[in-house]
Amino acid sequence: MKTAFRSILSCCLLTPLSAQIVPDGEYKFLRAQHGEKWDAEDKEIDQKLAQIREKNGGKRPNILYVLIDDVSFGQMGNRKMNYVMGIETPRLNQLSEESLNLMRMYTEPSCTPTRAAFLTGRHPVRIGIKEVKVALVGEGLQTEEVTIAEVLKKSGYNTAHIGKWHQGDIEQAYPHNQGFDYASFPLHQQVQLTVMTKESGKANNQFGYTRDLRSSKLELDKKFRPFGLVTSVEAEAGGTASECDILKAGEEWSHDHYVKLNELYQKQILEQVDSLAKKDEPFFLQYWPLYPLNFVYEDSPESRNGGFFAEKLQLLDGWIGELLDKLEETGEADNTIVVFMADNGLMYHYEGPSGLSQLIYRGGKTQHLEGGVRVDAFIRWPGVVEANSYAGDITHVSDLFSTFARVGQATEHIPTDRVIDGIDQTALLLNGEEHGRRDFVYIYENEILRSVVKQEYKMHVPAPGVPGAAAPVFNVLRDPREENAHVGAALWSGASFQDMIKRHMMTIAQYPHSKLGKGKPYEGIDNLRPESKETVELFMSWHPKK
Amino acid sequence: MKTAFRSILSCCLLTPLSAQIVPDGEYKFLRAQHGEKWDAEDKEIDQKLAQIREKNGGKRPNILYVLIDDVSFGQMGNRKMNYVMGIETPRLNQLSEESLNLMRMYTEPSCTPTRAAFLTGRHPVRIGIKEVKVALVGEGLQTEEVTIAEVLKKSGYNTAHIGKWHQGDIEQAYPHNQGFDYASFPLHQQVQLTVMTKESGKANNQFGYTRDLRSSKLELDKKFRPFGLVTSVEAEAGGTASECDILKAGEEWSHDHYVKLNELYQKQILEQVDSLAKKDEPFFLQYWPLYPLNFVYEDSPESRNGGFFAEKLQLLDGWIGELLDKLEETGEADNTIVVFMADNGLMYHYEGPSGLSQLIYRGGKTQHLEGGVRVDAFIRWPGVVEANSYAGDITHVSDLFSTFARVGQATEHIPTDRVIDGIDQTALLLNGEEHGRRDFVYIYENEILRSVVKQEYKMHVPAPGVPGAAAPVFNVLRDPREENAHVGAALWSGASFQDMIKRHMMTIAQYPHSKLGKGKPYEGIDNLRPESKETVELFMSWHPKK
Repeated sequence: MKTAFRSILSCCLLTPLSAQIVPDGEYKFLRAQHGEKWDAEDKEIDQKLAQIREKNGGKRPNILYVLIDDVSFGQMGNRKMNYVMGIETPRLNQLSEESLNLMRMYTEPSCTPTRAAFLTGRHPVRIGIKEVKVALVGEGLQTEEVTIAEVLKKSGYNTAHIGKWHQGDIEQAYPHNQGFDYASFPLHQQVQLTVMTKESGKANNQFGYTRDLRSSKLELDKKFRPFGLVTSVEAEAGGTASECDILKAGEEWSHDHYVKLNELYQKQILEQVDSLAKKDEPFFLQYWPLYPLNFVYEDSPESRNGGFFAEKLQLLDGWIGELLDKLEETGEADNTIVVFMADNGLMYHYEGPSGLSQLIYRGGKTQHLEGGVRVDAFIRWPGVVEANSYAGDITHVSDLFSTFARVGQATEHIPTDRVIDGIDQTALLLNGEEHGRRDFVYIYENEILRSVVKQEYKMHVPAPGVPGAAAPVFNVLRDPREENAHVGAALWSGASFQDMIKRHMMTIAQYPHSKLGKGKPYEGIDNLRPESKETVELFMSWHPKK
Repeated sequence: MKTAFRSILSCCLLTPLSAQIVPDGEYKFLRAQHGEKWDAEDKEIDQKLAQIREKNGGKRPNILYVLIDDVSFGQMGNRKMNYVMGIETPRLNQLSEESLNLMRMYTEPSCTPTRAAFLTGRHPVRIGIKEVKVALVGEGLQTEEVTIAEVLKKSGYNTAHIGKWHQGDIEQAYPHNQGFDYASFPLHQQVQLTVMTKESGKANNQFGYTRDLRSSKLELDKKFRPFGLVTSVEAEAGGTASECDILKAGEEWSHDHYVKLNELYQKQILEQVDSLAKKDEPFFLQYWPLYPLNFVYEDSPESRNGGFFAEKLQLLDGWIGELLDKLEETGEADNTIVVFMADNGLMYHYEGPSGLSQLIYRGGKTQHLEGGVRVDAFIRWPGVVEANSYAGDITHVSDLFSTFARVGQATEHIPTDRVIDGIDQTALLLNGEEHGRRDFVYIYENEILRSVVKQEYKMHVPAPGVPGAAAPVFNVLRDPREENAHVGAALWSGASFQDMIKRHMMTIAQYPHSKLGKGKPYEGIDNLRPESKETVELFMSWHPKK
């Protein structure tokens, strides 16, 4: 009853408050062209959302957001591509058939930036977030940033996060300090957890991390090869974190530990669904698996491909299936929005042994090319989002922030003192293709604007000092691999692209970027192993004052 | 009744006769490993085929073979790829869903060789067939070659061919002299029909064919730019051919003529279905459209892509739909095997303006790379072939020759004095995936063996004189674009690939290649225009005696 009342209240407040959100200049320019139509559509959408809540006893929808690592567009949820790659993903294929398939979902080109864009609804460049180093950084997501977990929590959602987090190793950046009631997550990422093992060193002799696979007779610096890093921790909002007991003090991390950690997260996500389903409030639940990243071949591969990522992608398919079954079993499936996607394109550096390779689009992780920032994204919302539907509209991962807030009746909690890049795409979800509200994306590699996308055109931004007239423009429908610049298109679109960049830059001038959080790594963890303490001390011995 | 009797007779004769077909050495090697199992399976298949005929009043199935030009694997019949390219092909997507989708159908890398391989069940290198020049050649498919039309006709099928033929400009090579009761076909190909027009010259200023788009003040040779070529002719078996009346004597071929010719073939294929459906005998009908090749942009494009091939691919989608509707309307759909595929990969030279581009596989037409020889192939046979099924088994276009003969109860008419590369894949059609009988392909570019495929491995054959150990081997599941040669695989598979090549070469030594047919162009056409006569005379003035 309390929830229902709050929903009605926030519904009434929604329109005037959401008007104060500060969008990027390019969206303002679109609003100047379509604002009236969109406002009218929004009124209908509010009614539809109210009807959906009514059908569910006043309860707002749960949101389950599954984000996996480094899989390019076209490689997931498609039977034909399964055959191309020699893997089987029946559950993801089925999920695709039950979902709205977003055909032009753009991410940032790397894990940390994409996750930050989703969490804050802001381009990571605005908050100083770049790709994150492998070991200690003493940096991370600031307290002042407002995450979607905070937005939804304020409006009454229960929130939990399981799996990869990758927003920094300082206390303020931890998920349980960023809006999640509960979190189980690794402090760093897969380089520590699957590359820096003896098994991976043997399987891929180029890695050369592991001490006993080489002679270290002349080694002075023990820290060039990172060691003693915290593995995975668990915590509740406001509490301290505890490292999980997978690794004993003094023990060396191995591939077996990595397998166990992945299995732990899978077990925990199922437990979370069970436990959240029992509560009165709706839930916002994140599952960000570490797989398919994995640098060790299986002894008995399940797929015809056998590559070390391909195998884990196929395994993950079953795990996602198990998660969806659990949703069903708890009776929550019908009132749960499931969003499944990858965080960016594949690690093309491991084409061949990994079993995944650049296919439809060129490029991968770290790159502004379509292969780096185009991913599959499936949105399932039974009875609301049309099953087996496709939308060619452009979306950006930050749009999920604004859209989740809208469907969760929490838009009023989105901050209005900073730029929010995320565009509310609820119309696209409810009314389908051609109801998207974005026809552009700015693509950064770290702090450098590398490409601007508008409609089917994409300009690769020239390096500083290079004349704008030299900027190549690509038609991504006719030339998806961005290999043949379209001179004719560049001649007329160059000026329009320059205007787009101006509108973006004028917005930045008005709302300057904020800074990345800084601090001492590993604070707020109550059971640091001795080797982790040593690692922090060594880090602090040289690091500029935080 | 006559048909039914003949069917029963040929069924009894089938097994002993088909045992005499001469396969390539590699297939013999597979038979040595699987022969017993296959023989047992074949007995069951004969029973199934008999039951299917019984269900259809003793009538054998009709066969409709639609072969389109230059579209790479993954680009047809798939909603996701529709979005990637910005086109819509709902009818082909539906056909794919109603069909067995062959995931590893290999063709030859160019139009003429692929069509010859299908027609004769033989690698074109065995019959001297290479890619065919644009204008007069005085060459073509020999009378001595036995086509699938001849095989099926001998066993009582009615046969007809509509559209591109491309087997030469000499009388013996014409379709109505190669087993077709009726044929309507262009003497040459699309370079004449869509490239050599003023409109195409203006749209793509690099072509430079058309006289009045340049100054010809210093031109001595009027024939370097081909002229006066015969356009399209129509004929019945044993009769002479007549050029169609689309072009008047002295008139210049234009884009409008090309559009009319395509429309004519579409009209004729519908008429053929109507007329063949009325007869007692089953039919074998070929539709080989000239579209999607086309070098002129539309004034009002239908697709978001707008490229000049993309537009015609989308148009063709509707035309194929119309053809399938006609089959339905005449009541023949249920007893008709529809095979739809492309003849080779895309004309990658026109990526960009054409709107089609290399996507999943690298390379295209003319190349031994997967992008040149992997195509989509859909086989629909209602109630017999499982709808919406997929098979990862390897097939080659020549297999259709042997398979069509088998299902048409005509295997006895396959010649036994020469190598037949086509493998009977009826088991794959009836029993589905993992019932294919080929795990290899030899890929030629003209007379040069460029690649050998076995299972998921592909060796690029080194140039003459280059040591075999330098031959790169690719895993096409892990590396579909053949970009990262797999040294480890080459170390063990090199010897096996060499054995495969030996088995192939030993077969050639035993059954030497036959020769291409030679003759005077345009004989057997009863209404040659004066300019065509002049062109033949000029050709004969320099050409070595045929």
